[in-house]
Amino acid sequence: MISINKRAVVLSSGGLDSTTVMAIAKHEGFELYSLSFHYGQRHSFELEAARKMAEVFGVQEHMVINIDLKKIGGSALTDDIEVPKDGTEESMAAEIPVTYVPARNTIFLAYALAWAEVLQSSDIFIGVNAIDYSGYPDCRPEYIEAFQRMANLATKAGVQGTSQIKIHTPLINMTKAQIIQKGIKLGIDYALTHSCYDPSSQGLACGRCDSCIVRLKGFKAAGIKDPIKYA
Amino acid sequence: MISINKRAVVLSSGGLDSTTVMAIAKHEGFELYSLSFHYGQRHSFELEAARKMAEVFGVQEHMVINIDLKKIGGSALTDDIEVPKDGTEESMAAEIPVTYVPARNTIFLAYALAWAEVLQSSDIFIGVNAIDYSGYPDCRPEYIEAFQRMANLATKAGVQGTSQIKIHTPLINMTKAQIIQKGIKLGIDYALTHSCYDPSSQGLACGRCDSCIVRLKGFKAAGIKDPIKYA
Repeated sequence: MISINKRAVVLSSGGLDSTTVMAIAKHEGFELYSLSFHYGQRHSFELEAARKMAEVFGVQEHMVINIDLKKIGGSALTDDIEVPKDGTEESMAAEIPVTYVPARNTIFLAYALAWAEVLQSSDIFIGVNAIDYSGYPDCRPEYIEAFQRMANLATKAGVQGTSQIKIHTPLINMTKAQIIQKGIKLGIDYALTHSCYDPSSQGLACGRCDSCIVRLKGFKAAGIKDPIKYA
Repeated sequence: MISINKRAVVLSSGGLDSTTVMAIAKHEGFELYSLSFHYGQRHSFELEAARKMAEVFGVQEHMVINIDLKKIGGSALTDDIEVPKDGTEESMAAEIPVTYVPARNTIFLAYALAWAEVLQSSDIFIGVNAIDYSGYPDCRPEYIEAFQRMANLATKAGVQGTSQIKIHTPLINMTKAQIIQKGIKLGIDYALTHSCYDPSSQGLACGRCDSCIVRLKGFKAAGIKDPIKYA
């Protein structure tokens, strides 16, 4: 019999970071429940990659939730705002970018919390990163700690004191190169991942948006060739 | 010109509490943006009441967001679990009831936070109540404070220090009778509100679920006749 204590909800975007997180959670012995979102992204290659990864990792259940962030607006990832290209490290770090989606991680983690509560799981994994985090406020350790504290006041288990929700962020202090090296060690085929904010209609990565630039830089620093095709 | 600082996002269910909150926010001079959710409720009378209230209060915009809590499950309000009837005050306070929806207020407030950020509003109103709260963990002051703290770490404005999100809970320490008296003073027509968890097919309140019992008791204690019809 599988212990219900070992269930984990893993937020999965089909990208490099969340795929590495899934490999880490599996390596730590958790039974995986992967959670992806259709949130009015400009393309669905991410979701396709997330579905493939759920298969590769043999998750117990893969759930895709439709959320209407497009209705709320405010981001280049969901609105008709142009995705910036060829950003330098300085311009990317200068301010919070237009690809920031308002309260996105808060909404994602809120759903993960709901599902964890129903599954009687107390472990949620998310691939946030404070180093290559592109200036998103909801990727910082202090934000994650505050969410965890709130989560333990929000739930039955927290109130009854039977278990404490833990938000696992295994990548938070790793460089992109370290993340890639860790994933390679755990056997990830990064050819199946999708990172680009603005892919071609065939799903080829642009190589020029902030996400591609950070990814390519990471592979270069890791001394590994990025196995995906670029346009 | 209307100052953008006076915009408020008000969570609205069409019920007694959130309607009173909307009247309070309007009385305090806020420009109202009402937010309701279609979350797989067993009926849509709530949403109809919320829509009417948006009209009555002349809100700037009323947004209804579809969220798939039914997919996640775990509650009598979204699943095929029977809604309990004829609960005593003791049985209702004894434990967290089956009508509890996992992480519901966390998900609702996360969307409110996203919308507030897009509207450049820093004020969110929610009708939680710690007295007649029916044992829901996410209606307690310590939960709301933790959410507010997290919200200020999650957002652009919080990080840039330009403004601080405030979660307003004007009802949190009021009895149901006090809420009703306050609402009457502010001119609310409670005949338009809907509270029942399990109404008839015509939308008549059952008078026997926890929500109806708390409502009826509140009107009795306030010395006012509840203007809605019961089955």
